[in-house]
Amino acid sequence: MPFVRIDAIRADEKRLEAVGRAVHDALVEAVGIPQDDLFQVLTSHDGSQRVLRYGTFPAMDRDDDIVFVAITMRSGRTAEQKQALYRRIAELAQEYAGTEPRNVLVTITENEPIDWSFGDGVAQYAEAAPH
Amino acid sequence: MPFVRIDAIRADEKRLEAVGRAVHDALVEAVGIPQDDLFQVLTSHDGSQRVLRYGTFPAMDRDDDIVFVAITMRSGRTAEQKQALYRRIAELAQEYAGTEPRNVLVTITENEPIDWSFGDGVAQYAEAAPH
Amino acid sequence: MPFVRIDAIRADEKRLEAVGRAVHDALVEAVGIPQDDLFQVLTSHDGSQRVLRYGTFPAMDRDDDIVFVAITMRSGRTAEQKQALYRRIAELAQEYAGTEPRNVLVTITENEPIDWSFGDGVAQYAEAAPH
Repeated sequence: MPFVRIDAIRADEKRLEAVGRAVHDALVEAVGIPQDDLFQVLTSHDGSQRVLRYGTFPAMDRDDDIVFVAITMRSGRTAEQKQALYRRIAELAQEYAGTEPRNVLVTITENEPIDWSFGDGVAQYAEAAPH
Repeated sequence: MPFVRIDAIRADEKRLEAVGRAVHDALVEAVGIPQDDLFQVLTSHDGSQRVLRYGTFPAMDRDDDIVFVAITMRSGRTAEQKQALYRRIAELAQEYAGTEPRNVLVTITENEPIDWSFGDGVAQYAEAAPH
Repeated sequence: MPFVRIDAIRADEKRLEAVGRAVHDALVEAVGIPQDDLFQVLTSHDGSQRVLRYGTFPAMDRDDDIVFVAITMRSGRTAEQKQALYRRIAELAQEYAGTEPRNVLVTITENEPIDWSFGDGVAQYAEAAPH
């Protein structure tokens, strides 16, 4: 279910894959997402037609290794789960891709079970949960 | 009002346009969106600088014809409307672009009328509905 | 905190930067975002692998100078603040990039403080505000 967009700067395919894997493994470990519940859009920005801009808020020393991770998922995760998720993404991004924790920005947007169709033109969560 | 991002893999301009048209026509038919209420970002991913990753959840046999459709729209649509929308997107994506229903992932994110400015620096829905 | 995606058509680096700066300055002026609280993804679409499609809703005469601005930010801004934001984005996009107000579409998606990690694997807003 999580739908994830990841944006990085001048990252090759291998680095994109490593960061994507870090985010997915963190979702599996920290939030209990099924292993095969993987939907990611990974984009490397060339600095001319595709550009990332970033500041230092809140007193964070970032550089061009920056990674933006935007996660859309169903509501219902607790604050503790989200905090564990951020921690684990930062750890695994460093382990898999060498990205320092200061360079990992994560933002979550939530929606509801009815807001997902995984294929076949069906709202699978609505079918599964009859309420 | 719907703002739609569509991501596909190695799709040419014609296929992107066909998928975009499928999603828009489905929004018009199933949710009552005006015909001219069209705002889409369509991206073809080359597999190196722009990459899509996907799994099999929930027991769905996908391949590189996969299409991610992310719709932002105002809240207020019923579950039945959303289900009709998913069904119609799947039907029209197959009809217009040859994309099989198993390869169409749709996710919806909702916001409110005040969250839209269609131009001229104005929140048109807020002006129209004085609540 | 705002995380902003900006999409334009055949825009060079200079124009992307000008539009990005317009949006950021408007956020600072109209909504009180800190100057260094800048996180933007700017994409120029070539019309073949990356395509924008747009209609005329609601009676707006757009052309290929169109700019889509999608802002994710914490909930809590008032209708008045959002209206001031739209107005200021339109003004500054014209001033900095020559983009006419009719060509500026803005949409806002809101989330909560816990939905942000600015780096170091931490949910900074959750730490700062012990609710």
